[in-house]
Formats: sequence, structure tokens, C-alpha cells
Amino acid sequence: MLNIGIKGLGVALPKNYVEFESGRRYRISGEENHLDLLCKSAENALSNSGLTIDDMDVIIGACAVGLQPIPCTAALVHEVIAKDRKIPAFDINSTCTSFITALDVVGYQIQAGRYKHALIVSGDVGSIALNENERHSYELLGDGAVSAVISQSETSDILYATQITYSVGAHLTEISGGGTALPAYYYNGNNKEKYQFHMEGKSALVATAKLVGEVLNNIEKSSGFKLDDIDMIIPHQASSALGLIMRRLNVPENKYIDITKQYGNMVSASVPFALDYAIKSGRVRRGDIVMFLGSAAGLTINAMIIKF
Amino acid sequence: MLNIGIKGLGVALPKNYVEFESGRRYRISGEENHLDLLCKSAENALSNSGLTIDDMDVIIGACAVGLQPIPCTAALVHEVIAKDRKIPAFDINSTCTSFITALDVVGYQIQAGRYKHALIVSGDVGSIALNENERHSYELLGDGAVSAVISQSETSDILYATQITYSVGAHLTEISGGGTALPAYYYNGNNKEKYQFHMEGKSALVATAKLVGEVLNNIEKSSGFKLDDIDMIIPHQASSALGLIMRRLNVPENKYIDITKQYGNMVSASVPFALDYAIKSGRVRRGDIVMFLGSAAGLTINAMIIKF
Repeated sequence: MLNIGIKGLGVALPKNYVEFESGRRYRISGEENHLDLLCKSAENALSNSGLTIDDMDVIIGACAVGLQPIPCTAALVHEVIAKDRKIPAFDINSTCTSFITALDVVGYQIQAGRYKHALIVSGDVGSIALNENERHSYELLGDGAVSAVISQSETSDILYATQITYSVGAHLTEISGGGTALPAYYYNGNNKEKYQFHMEGKSALVATAKLVGEVLNNIEKSSGFKLDDIDMIIPHQASSALGLIMRRLNVPENKYIDITKQYGNMVSASVPFALDYAIKSGRVRRGDIVMFLGSAAGLTINAMIIKF
Repeated sequence: MLNIGIKGLGVALPKNYVEFESGRRYRISGEENHLDLLCKSAENALSNSGLTIDDMDVIIGACAVGLQPIPCTAALVHEVIAKDRKIPAFDINSTCTSFITALDVVGYQIQAGRYKHALIVSGDVGSIALNENERHSYELLGDGAVSAVISQSETSDILYATQITYSVGAHLTEISGGGTALPAYYYNGNNKEKYQFHMEGKSALVATAKLVGEVLNNIEKSSGFKLDDIDMIIPHQASSALGLIMRRLNVPENKYIDITKQYGNMVSASVPFALDYAIKSGRVRRGDIVMFLGSAAGLTINAMIIKF
């Protein structure tokens, strides 16, 4: 059984941002697009890991919304950064926590020796699907991409992971149109909101707070880890209520990353971006015990404890 | 290390079909929809496995195209068949070979003891995205769903798996509109074909034949299995040229399943449907060595050898 580590991260943010009272939100403009952000973050992750695409054994797309209905996003990233590399490219999707789910899944493949190095590519451009009449989400989402090289490691490891979908909340956060349930070609100019991001702000917050609490309370029993054992929590930056939720869960302020003011909710890029931020600001160091704690549309909660 | 087996399969086909000269294609009509097919196949898979949803530890959506951009398809299936079950639901996507990729991925999780029983839900309703001016795909795709219960097993196992994306063929088969690259709300009535299935029939066929051959030729070296060791090949039912490709690869007719005439290309449901067909027609029995051999938009090739 091999150990698993996050060897390096790479970030790509849009050039421009919008300033709201609630904070700064990076958003694509002009020629910038989702694919470019994903590929730029991937190149940065490789470079920061001291590796090249030739070292990668698999590319996993872990975005909330794909570039095209067909093929998968990872194949389109592969086309740009790995065209002649004979490696698999596939997507894993649990919306906002796709990065954690992908790390969880590929961890087992690395542990079993199937792959030595995996490239996880996360990122979304939620700004293109916002409804300006829904202020709480319109001012919340930011665009960005973060990729990670996941490798066999002597010093790091995934220590525990759990994931639960509470589908009573399946429609609290959604884009209902664009898939098979409401095809794109039913768009008629008058039903645009069906093709836009929608979040029942208050209900989603209440449900998330309750369910994150439930998962967190259960972790000691199921993982053996107490809150005291965790050096830093990297939560999904779901909303500006993050601090409120963490206080309710009795998590001290110095024990979690909250950059919702500075960056908003960057959807699938949020968790790896907050990890990158924590590393760059010296709040996470190699050897630290780090917990990813994410909530996603579904409603899905992920918790993962790693030795970074 | 635990062994992995396909405990049971469940199929759901639309009530109606269309007859072309090239064969019969099942297609949804009236109130039938993608979600209903997926859930019905899942219920059938559970029932055929002698298990219930309470036994499942994870639901994996393995479709080519999702129900909605957000949340993932597995969460929407969870909402119908597992609403109060505290289990994860997430999607894995490699287009037409999503079932094989999902089995490959969850196999490692079962092997490591993370899950005991997994429910993989595959299926597509390609008929809603067909372009009647593109006859080769218009007459090829059929709708359907197949689910599988994957469990720890004493007698079955996954013996070998490989997956390669040849993204030189990334645009040979695609639906370009509906994701972030061409959002649904750019649909204007005159650009419908961008939101429809498109396949460069001849180029896709030539590329697939070449690459399947490459993967197949490499299997003996990488897996130790010779063609003689394989009892039955379950290929993706990509097109009516399946027989032609198999003949070129020197695979005898009694060694693979070709039901393209009867059912067409059922996208992500094709591979598990062909397995189910092979079992029901007595061509695959417990203990047989079976090879899944799939091609998918991407262009991705999957090969997997199991002891069924």
C-alpha cells in the first residue's frame, strides 16, 4: 500500500474582477474562457511540482460544469496539454466538492499502484450562468481554476475520507436547464433563469450548517481524529456565512481558512484554491494534519483528513 | 485485498422503438425521460442482485450526458431511489465508456474496503439530441439505461484494466453546445445543430479501428492475457461497422457480442446492456473470462478483463 500526497498546486485566475460590497470576485472577460483557465492551472501545477505532462499517468477533470456535454472536460484539457500522451482522461463530478471526490477516488488508484502521478484539474466559470436578479448568488460566485499533481509519497497521505449525499437538498442549488431534463434547445429567450445558477440562499445555508455539523460530529467516532488533532480546516468557501457556521460548530477562527470576502465561492476551484492560499500564507506546512470540509449541490458533504 | 464482482444487472428500455433499415432503435416518447429510465434500471439491478438500496454504500452516475448541469446525475437518482440513505452520490464520465471507467474506479475502492456494495447507474437518451440531417447518427443511437450492483466477491474479480485518451480525436464525436464553451442561452433557433449530437462517421470509425487495434495488440504484453484466454468480448456497440472492425482484428465471430442491428448504439448503456444480453442468451456464464472493449468520444479506449 503506497502513500498519497499533493505534490504541487497551480492556480489560474481571470485578469479582471468585480468589486461588490461583499467582496472581490474574479470573473472572465473578453477572450478568456473556462478551458484556458483549466489548462493554465494545469501547467502551473506541473511546473510547481517540478514535473511535466510526460510524468502524468492520468488527467481527471473535477469541475462542477463541463465545457461541452460531449466529450468529457478532461479529454478537452488533454487535447491542449497532452495531445500525444497515451494516458486516460475522465471526469469526476460532485459539483463544488469535485476536487475532494477526485482526490479520494484517485488516492485508491495510486495506493494500489495503478498510477504514479495524477493531474486533477478543477475550475469553473460560474459568472457566465449568473442571474442578476438573484443578488445573493450574483455577488457570490467567482471564476478560477486550480489543478493539483497527486503522487505517490513517502511523507504525505490521505488518512480518512467520507462523503454523504443528502438529496433532500438536491434542488437547493442547481442549474436545471442544459442537460437532458431541459435541453439547451428549449431556451427561448424568456426562460433564461432555468439555464442560470439558482441557490435557495437561506435554505441551502441552514441545511448545509446542519449537515456539515452532523458529518463533523461523527468524524471523531469514525476516524479517531479529534478537532484538536487537526492543524487546519480547508472548507469549501460556500458563502460569507462560513464564519457563522464555523462558530456554531465551535471551530476556532485560527483553525480554518475563510477567504470568501476576497474571492467568493469559486465552485470546484474553491477548496484547492483555499489550500493554495493557506500554504502561501504559511498557515499550512508540509507534515500538517489538514481537513478538507466541503458542501456541494446534491446536497453532498465531503470530509477528508490528510497529512500534507 | 478483496475481490470485486458484478453481482447483478438491471435494464430499462423505452416502451417504443423506431425501425430503420439499419435496425431497431428504442427511443423515449411521451412522458418517458432519462431520470425514469435510470431509476428503473437501478431498481431492477437491486432486485436482480437480491439486495435493496439499504445495502448500497455509494451511487455512481456513469452517463455520457447528465440530467442537469448542476447537481450531478447521481444526486438526482439518489433523490428518487435513496432519499434518506446517507451514502455518497457522484458521477464519473468518459462518455460511452463511463460504465467501464466507473467499474474500474470503484473496483479499487471496494478492493480497499471503502465500500462493500456500489450501484453504478448508466444510461442515455441520445434521441433527444439527434440531428435528422446527419443520417448515420440519426439512425444509430438508441435510448436505454443499465445499472449494476458491484460487490465484494469470493469468485469474481477485475483482472486487468487500461484506458487511453487519444485526444487527436476529441472533436470526432461531440455535442459542442450546452456547457460553458457554448452556453445553452446562446441557442437561437438557427444554431440547433451545435446543441445536437455530431459524429464524423468515417473519421471516427477509422480512428477507432486503429486505436482499438493498438490497445488490443498491447494487451498480451501488458496483461499477460492472449485472445485465446478470453471467453467473450463485450464491445461498445459503437456502430454497425463493429463486425468489420472485429474481423480486421482477427476476432472470431463467436467471441464477441454484436447487437448493433437490434439495439443500435445506446451510448453509456451499450456496454452493460451487451453484457446483460450475453448473460441472458447464455453466451456469458459465471466464471467466464470476459473482456470489455470500448471506444468513447474523447477519443477514449477502455479495455478491461474480468472473471465474471
